[in-house]
Amino acid sequence: MERTLIGQIKENDGKKVLINGRVLNIRNLSNVVFLIVQDYTGTIQAVFDKTVEAKAGEAIALEGTVKKEPRSKYGFEIQGEKAEVISNIIEDLPFDLTKKDLSLNLPTLLDNRAISLRHPKVQAIFKLYDILLKGYETVMREEGFTEVKTPKILGAATEGGANFFKVKYFDKEATLAQSPQFYKQIMVGVFERVFEIGSTFRAEPHFTTRHVNEYISLDAEMGFIKDFYDVSDMLNKILKKVFLMIEKEGKPYLDMYNVKISEVPDQIPRVKLADIRKIVKEKYNYSIPEETDIDPEGEKLAGKYAKEKFNSDFIFITHYPWSEKPFYTMPSEEDPKETYGFDLIFKGLEIVTGSQRIHTHKQLIENMEKKKIKPDGMEFYLDTFKYAIPPHGGWGMGSERLIQQILGLASIKEAILFPRDVKRLIP
Amino acid sequence: MERTLIGQIKENDGKKVLINGRVLNIRNLSNVVFLIVQDYTGTIQAVFDKTVEAKAGEAIALEGTVKKEPRSKYGFEIQGEKAEVISNIIEDLPFDLTKKDLSLNLPTLLDNRAISLRHPKVQAIFKLYDILLKGYETVMREEGFTEVKTPKILGAATEGGANFFKVKYFDKEATLAQSPQFYKQIMVGVFERVFEIGSTFRAEPHFTTRHVNEYISLDAEMGFIKDFYDVSDMLNKILKKVFLMIEKEGKPYLDMYNVKISEVPDQIPRVKLADIRKIVKEKYNYSIPEETDIDPEGEKLAGKYAKEKFNSDFIFITHYPWSEKPFYTMPSEEDPKETYGFDLIFKGLEIVTGSQRIHTHKQLIENMEKKKIKPDGMEFYLDTFKYAIPPHGGWGMGSERLIQQILGLASIKEAILFPRDVKRLIP
Repeated sequence: MERTLIGQIKENDGKKVLINGRVLNIRNLSNVVFLIVQDYTGTIQAVFDKTVEAKAGEAIALEGTVKKEPRSKYGFEIQGEKAEVISNIIEDLPFDLTKKDLSLNLPTLLDNRAISLRHPKVQAIFKLYDILLKGYETVMREEGFTEVKTPKILGAATEGGANFFKVKYFDKEATLAQSPQFYKQIMVGVFERVFEIGSTFRAEPHFTTRHVNEYISLDAEMGFIKDFYDVSDMLNKILKKVFLMIEKEGKPYLDMYNVKISEVPDQIPRVKLADIRKIVKEKYNYSIPEETDIDPEGEKLAGKYAKEKFNSDFIFITHYPWSEKPFYTMPSEEDPKETYGFDLIFKGLEIVTGSQRIHTHKQLIENMEKKKIKPDGMEFYLDTFKYAIPPHGGWGMGSERLIQQILGLASIKEAILFPRDVKRLIP
Repeated sequence: MERTLIGQIKENDGKKVLINGRVLNIRNLSNVVFLIVQDYTGTIQAVFDKTVEAKAGEAIALEGTVKKEPRSKYGFEIQGEKAEVISNIIEDLPFDLTKKDLSLNLPTLLDNRAISLRHPKVQAIFKLYDILLKGYETVMREEGFTEVKTPKILGAATEGGANFFKVKYFDKEATLAQSPQFYKQIMVGVFERVFEIGSTFRAEPHFTTRHVNEYISLDAEMGFIKDFYDVSDMLNKILKKVFLMIEKEGKPYLDMYNVKISEVPDQIPRVKLADIRKIVKEKYNYSIPEETDIDPEGEKLAGKYAKEKFNSDFIFITHYPWSEKPFYTMPSEEDPKETYGFDLIFKGLEIVTGSQRIHTHKQLIENMEKKKIKPDGMEFYLDTFKYAIPPHGGWGMGSERLIQQILGLASIKEAILFPRDVKRLIP
């Protein structure tokens, strides 16, 4: 008998079908058995009038007849005739997957990741993540961006800074990419607009709810901009489209978290960092520490302000200080202590960093000298600017933070299949 | 004046436009100047009746009036009025980008990558690559696969073998992923069908035209298979759709290489490795060395055989020997010296490795013992098989090799923006 997918159940009303899937739940009552089974296209309930030898979590082949069932949330059910275990459970599951919520602490959730991922509410996170990837891929292409893949093993540290992982590369020492920064800028000289979805590695010894040491960055870089607002406007447009797509295609998953996805304003409010510092002090009596540009509490309050003042879950904070931004960030013409760098705050958390970049060789070298950064190993990048790179800018967006914030997850690690932190290399 | 994209030229017939783009070529004749300019939407020729102060390769703003011009291959041209350099070239280009073919040796091509990538024929490679990525993303979703992203920094070497790069991970030692093998198999227990597009790292000290040390693998894994032919059939279907997409959307780029893309047969021929060895000996008098499963020359001749016998550019070679395949490959039931592992050969080069995997804990442990592989560090993977993983299989496809073979490029490195080999870490 050929397999019928659960997604095709309604076209098989009255017919006998064979379903392959995983038992999400099974309740053996005295004279009736309810079995919920899931395959990659959906979930359905089967009802048996005899005992079924299968446990929750097992992979089964189920035969039965499809019946309309208005009382079922699926609209149909299967009158089960036969259920056979295809692959069985040989050791007790570490926790009960049939509960509505797993309610596990984070280490248990992550230590037993192969199992916790099977819970429908955990699955939902990664179904949304899949839609986010699809959305970004689709929408970036609509806007004329070419997808590129750039190397993750580098001969030189991307940002000339610290916090990179070292790799033994044959007889050399290499580093893992902290971002595709240099390469996407080079690609502006080739395709003008490029995007990349790629692994990013940061050797930051953080233990927070918003940091991990490996993540997927949604990057973009675009040429022939008038100013950095061209970049933030493009990001605004991209996010609006992606969020609409997530809203439409991700509804069942958002519903499981009782979440209504944020509306992306046509024009996300933009406030200078210097003004945010004042506003946060005046309105919420919080002083962002002098030694930082903005701290997590500052971001949170900037988010609060955006909500109160503009009814927006998003706010661009612009004109980050020159001293805090990497050497390739374009300094402001109005005030050289500031740059055309911005962050996007979503519900009080930074999810994007972007900027206009310096595009002439002369200014780039001058800026490096001012910052006392040596060009060693970066010559291939710097030399590119001798060859007519147009004014350009771009961003890096934390894909997992986006999902974390959409769903209101306590930790970013919940939004990563197999997260990496200082202590966690396994699973 | 607002920028007009070259892709919108035909909607602007007779109108004055501002074009931003890169000068691909400029010919200053006595009383006329021809200038070819490219932006991210296309290429167009502008004609000036006065001198233009711009060099090939520079980024310019060009004003002029759009005119129908049937003699132009673009159908239109711009009567240029003004051209202003937005970003200039301050040092001579290392080679002439205006020639029809670059004709550089590989080291020069790669050492000057930021520049060589700008040549239209080199751009074409990566435009096709973009379509390949789009195709794979689209088609995998159509077949019900969920896109996943799995970690690239691992606590244990994926295949229990050698040839992995070591990373200093805080106070631990880690390795870079040679494949997402373990993770995608775990994900079969979650979503049944998953795919991943991700960086893959191999510390192989090869110097060949088909190896690099970092590449992008197009991975897939699917559950509830009857046998490994379910996997190869799915791959067959996916490739057919992706190739049709490349043919349709990539035509201008294929044309630049005078290439007609291969037809993917509805059923790619499948031949057992043991039979290929015999055929290659009988038909082409070549003995595949005893100590390998198949060598590059054997693959080439298998490809030749597929073309001659089946008029196919593709051939599945199946039933690779147990001794050569990783421990998770399902041994054949008919002959334990063979496995349900296969390769896909495209124009004489292996582009995919796939197999049915072992799905029970017992068989997996037994197979590891037979292969004398210790479970150290792999417990999280092995334990997963205690929890009802259905029969499954999958593949890893080399994205760059696919493009290399489609275009007939001499080296895989031509199909990678910034390739990594034993000696090459920069650019």
